[in-house]
Amino acid sequence: MRGFAGRATVEDALSWLDEQTQRLPEEAVSLGEAAGRVLAREVTSSVDVPAFDRSMMDGFAVRAADTMGASAYNRLSLSVIGQSMPGKPFEGQVGVGNAVRIMTGAPIPDGADAVLPVEVVEIEADDRILAQGDVSPGKHVGRIGEDIRRGTTVLPEGRVLRPQDVGVLSSIGCSHVPVMRCPRVRIVVTGNELLPAGSRPEGYRIVDSNGPVLSAMVARDGGTVINPGIVSDTPEAILDAMRTEADVALVSGGSSVGQEDHAPTLLREHGQLAIHGIAMRPSSPTGMGSLDGRLVFLLPGNPVSCLCAYDFFAGRAIRALGGRSPDWPYRQVTVPLGRKIVSTVGRLDYMRVRLVEGRAEPMAISSSSVLTSTTRADGFVLVPPDSEGYPPGSKVEMYLYD
Amino acid sequence: MRGFAGRATVEDALSWLDEQTQRLPEEAVSLGEAAGRVLAREVTSSVDVPAFDRSMMDGFAVRAADTMGASAYNRLSLSVIGQSMPGKPFEGQVGVGNAVRIMTGAPIPDGADAVLPVEVVEIEADDRILAQGDVSPGKHVGRIGEDIRRGTTVLPEGRVLRPQDVGVLSSIGCSHVPVMRCPRVRIVVTGNELLPAGSRPEGYRIVDSNGPVLSAMVARDGGTVINPGIVSDTPEAILDAMRTEADVALVSGGSSVGQEDHAPTLLREHGQLAIHGIAMRPSSPTGMGSLDGRLVFLLPGNPVSCLCAYDFFAGRAIRALGGRSPDWPYRQVTVPLGRKIVSTVGRLDYMRVRLVEGRAEPMAISSSSVLTSTTRADGFVLVPPDSEGYPPGSKVEMYLYD
Repeated sequence: MRGFAGRATVEDALSWLDEQTQRLPEEAVSLGEAAGRVLAREVTSSVDVPAFDRSMMDGFAVRAADTMGASAYNRLSLSVIGQSMPGKPFEGQVGVGNAVRIMTGAPIPDGADAVLPVEVVEIEADDRILAQGDVSPGKHVGRIGEDIRRGTTVLPEGRVLRPQDVGVLSSIGCSHVPVMRCPRVRIVVTGNELLPAGSRPEGYRIVDSNGPVLSAMVARDGGTVINPGIVSDTPEAILDAMRTEADVALVSGGSSVGQEDHAPTLLREHGQLAIHGIAMRPSSPTGMGSLDGRLVFLLPGNPVSCLCAYDFFAGRAIRALGGRSPDWPYRQVTVPLGRKIVSTVGRLDYMRVRLVEGRAEPMAISSSSVLTSTTRADGFVLVPPDSEGYPPGSKVEMYLYD
Repeated sequence: MRGFAGRATVEDALSWLDEQTQRLPEEAVSLGEAAGRVLAREVTSSVDVPAFDRSMMDGFAVRAADTMGASAYNRLSLSVIGQSMPGKPFEGQVGVGNAVRIMTGAPIPDGADAVLPVEVVEIEADDRILAQGDVSPGKHVGRIGEDIRRGTTVLPEGRVLRPQDVGVLSSIGCSHVPVMRCPRVRIVVTGNELLPAGSRPEGYRIVDSNGPVLSAMVARDGGTVINPGIVSDTPEAILDAMRTEADVALVSGGSSVGQEDHAPTLLREHGQLAIHGIAMRPSSPTGMGSLDGRLVFLLPGNPVSCLCAYDFFAGRAIRALGGRSPDWPYRQVTVPLGRKIVSTVGRLDYMRVRLVEGRAEPMAISSSSVLTSTTRADGFVLVPPDSEGYPPGSKVEMYLYD
């Protein structure tokens, strides 16, 4: 049992981390799996959308000149020579005085240059209509390439694909989409006192909560979870687990400097322990480094410390590996403080707060072993290392959990 | 071919819809699937967490009275009689002058009432330490039920489960979680001119984009997609598809009043067509009603109209069926308008806008057949029916797509 030699600042830890994280290579996924994924490179269309002039209205394809002067008081007669339906064009030619019944989206037949909407037409017979209004050339015609011109970039690299983006990719004939690979994240939960999630607590054994919390956060950040269950508290088992084929390993528990804290020693001996001990509360006994080319995070076992250390460091790296913004996914609001926050100079404080009538109230219980402090809270406020805290009424930046 | 007899207001359509939508029944999912789902009823803990007094520090469990007056200048000797590890308590009794080596999270042994942190201890021998500081009773001890007391409600009904919520459920021994069932949504894409998503456009045939867009939006709103592919434009095939076992049917295409628009007639004949034609742009040829107890939405085939009609009506219903907030998932910002917006009194306008240097600029192309207007836009602005639009510089509420 010994203390930390010295603690890194959060800033130092983040800058080490940002140097280590490079985007993963791309992979192709089918269109149906693309929404929410990150585009690995810009997509250029090899086709025009639409590939033909089309009608924007239900009505009649005509030569605009034939409708000149038509009105309710000057109805002009046109002969209907066929119809154009979406996917089933009229094959003939529209001559002077001709009209072709046309539906929205259907190809404009040769010879026609405008669409007379059904609303300004009186249908006299199956083969004869009276135009009651005029249209100028091009009216109600959607041109070739109106939506997308061949050769244009439709979506930029790095785009988190929206539903409509997937629609655009579909319309240009994309069957597979180049996206960033999702980081594979091995969750290594250690602790002989732990029962697996889904068990009932029993005697002096408690049920693992870090595994479920980390799994959900990794999924939120676009990672793929590998979590085969609790790992026994022996150096061999922990080292084996840290060496699982993955892009990131998250080790929960045993991250400090006690005799039972194996993970830091293992990482120091078999890889690199770059940061160990961080000037923050909670999560001070956090470590990070690398092993066999993967990032390894040593997260404290206390549930709030584990969550906070994940959110500060591991989540950021996982998002960046997957090509996402490293920033927090939490919405920020500026609110007045309901009660004072007291903090210690020299460390960053992560204060859970509730929103009460528009004011941020620090939670009474701040123990890092009380996970319900993060479920009863609405979010958190950070107090930087150079601050002793804030008086009531000060405006603070609050991050919202939801 | 005939026009709409009259158009409902968006407000009327929404109030009809809100009357129809009732929460679906609950189902149980395993803990690992619970994050992001909606809790169907409040969860009460049947256990204390922790179920025993535990240490909050690495150090020595002692009788606080034995440390009174200890300091660096007055070191008090204590005999170490054993150790307490997480999950492996010390079974004996801590008497006067005794100490038990203890780890964070380990049970406090009988007789001890405080923990002396390792930092204020000098270790003289394996069985002897010198206290260099004092602790008061209860110091560094986490009490039974400190996190959760048996019988308390840990999470309220309706909660969208956060990662930490799943952790709390795990810690109280929950293996399955009662959540709202996800609405099953049948997507019925019609249009003989359409090629299935994943094809290349060919001749006068275009590739379906509404299916992919709707699928991604339904998934976003917590629904389960049923979309076996394009449905042929015959009344029989469309009716069959609308009758798929599902909670909601979304019919894309053929929603207007033309001769090829089968869906409204089918819904009127076999179910209820409650709303047909809405005073808005785009999406005016939208319908909604019910068939065999499920909600049916008739969405225009034009891609922007389809997206907008989904977002105004179907998405709201799907979220509400699943117990989620009916409100849009889009973040709102108040921004000045870069250029004027012109709108027609009597209808609601959905204007796609870009953010350019903090100002909302309406997109030049507003055609509802141009899907890229929604991928190049950053969001949208609504102009209510009683407004003719807004001059440049006016502050408008913008909804952000991302």
